[in-house]
Amino acid sequence: MNNFYSAGSCRSSCFKFEIDGVQVGWIPSHVASLITRHTDVFLPPQEGVVSLCPRLDCYERRSEAVNEVLQTLRQESSLTCLKGWRDERYSVKPRFSDLPLMWMERAATSLFGVKRYGVHVNGYTVSDSRKVSMWLARRSITKQTYPGLLDNMVAGGLAAGVGIKHTLIKECEEEACIPADIAVKAHPVSTVSYTYEDEEGVFAESQFVFDLELPLDFKPCIGDGEVENFYLLPIEKVKELLATDDFKPNSAMVILDFLIRHSFIEPDTEPYYQELVTGLHQTL
Amino acid sequence: MNNFYSAGSCRSSCFKFEIDGVQVGWIPSHVASLITRHTDVFLPPQEGVVSLCPRLDCYERRSEAVNEVLQTLRQESSLTCLKGWRDERYSVKPRFSDLPLMWMERAATSLFGVKRYGVHVNGYTVSDSRKVSMWLARRSITKQTYPGLLDNMVAGGLAAGVGIKHTLIKECEEEACIPADIAVKAHPVSTVSYTYEDEEGVFAESQFVFDLELPLDFKPCIGDGEVENFYLLPIEKVKELLATDDFKPNSAMVILDFLIRHSFIEPDTEPYYQELVTGLHQTL
Repeated sequence: MNNFYSAGSCRSSCFKFEIDGVQVGWIPSHVASLITRHTDVFLPPQEGVVSLCPRLDCYERRSEAVNEVLQTLRQESSLTCLKGWRDERYSVKPRFSDLPLMWMERAATSLFGVKRYGVHVNGYTVSDSRKVSMWLARRSITKQTYPGLLDNMVAGGLAAGVGIKHTLIKECEEEACIPADIAVKAHPVSTVSYTYEDEEGVFAESQFVFDLELPLDFKPCIGDGEVENFYLLPIEKVKELLATDDFKPNSAMVILDFLIRHSFIEPDTEPYYQELVTGLHQTL
Repeated sequence: MNNFYSAGSCRSSCFKFEIDGVQVGWIPSHVASLITRHTDVFLPPQEGVVSLCPRLDCYERRSEAVNEVLQTLRQESSLTCLKGWRDERYSVKPRFSDLPLMWMERAATSLFGVKRYGVHVNGYTVSDSRKVSMWLARRSITKQTYPGLLDNMVAGGLAAGVGIKHTLIKECEEEACIPADIAVKAHPVSTVSYTYEDEEGVFAESQFVFDLELPLDFKPCIGDGEVENFYLLPIEKVKELLATDDFKPNSAMVILDFLIRHSFIEPDTEPYYQELVTGLHQTL
């Protein structure tokens, strides 16, 4: 999941994407050559940096100008990620706490390596004999990304200007029919951060991680059709599945973080314990 | 605590310390010029790397040859960290799970930026009304390092070849008179990793972190004299103290990790939540 940091990644040939002199992403070279044809929006690459034209000096102007370029590329180019256009606006900002410098269509963020944020919920139960089990989801085979793979119980992206806990409660309701009075008990415990590349671009992401202990008699159920099925699995089975290709990779990282925090993995018996932990928190 | 990664650190002028072509540390330039005078032990710096002479081809030969150089430096040079000689052997290895390539006197490890490992125990209580308090230690004013500062309840370095939980149980007994039947209940939850520099060298460290819930009527007491006093403090007070200079910096990081994992810090109200988490897991 962190192949962008590895030797041989596209990182060395990427351009930094800067707004007002501050980096907000990474642009692969094939994308840079497509977008910098639009000389009214992007300056020509200079010293490894692609910037917006200075006339685009506010949130609205930047967002609209870039959106027009993307709409053109969507029709003209072969950038497959734009076929997944969602009409979902992501905030572009140097750090999570900064004011957004523009918004960008979610499907385009990987072309610019713009940092994306999401929320993941580890749903679990504790039996009377203190046995822990986790609720996992099987993604619908009609999902655009990672169809049919195992996933965390509930996860979703953070849209521009929406709160983290608010997003969590909404996603719990929509994806797994978990009522708000249960979802609100989820508590924040960590973040998981990583950057990977594939043929569609650079994915720099941080997930805000919550744990939610569910009543033993509660069963999540299929909401908006993003999930095919939910399973309650004992921890030993979860560990076993985690080592297979059947898992959405970033969700596997979030569950690994759960297993470490809850002492299901121990440093005296797992030789790479420290490397596993630091691998969950990679940022550029 | 991560100033080695900051602009202006000595990192750019440091030499990599390599054994058999594998990096095991960072040597500041003033240290490199002192040790490479011993041409029977160290090769002259080459392309930013200082290596041991090839004739030192096993664990014992490397350890003894370097130890002789250090004994000489201890008498002849002005390297203040060597005045704190402890006769405590640290394992030098590329990664925690690797076989050690040599041992080195603990007081000298910062001269070579050799990675050091330790264990930290967050001792806490939960009242009948679910209020959490933490046991903190005040370091003895006679300690060589960070005298008089606040510290985690129990912490200690991992010596060559000794288990992590074993070290924890020993340190609990020695430093805080916590009997083994209580200490054994500590459970592993995380690691905290950082690299800092000061006038004595480069400190690359990872701490294995354990949580230990203590009975409400239990009180740690002063063991080997490394601690001046123990205090049981409500979480709000701990948070307040954490922001002061009164805390040993790496212990403050371990306690910050505790506060995050136990939801005493929340991402919707702490704007730098994600940066706080990733800052706890920096490695080179």
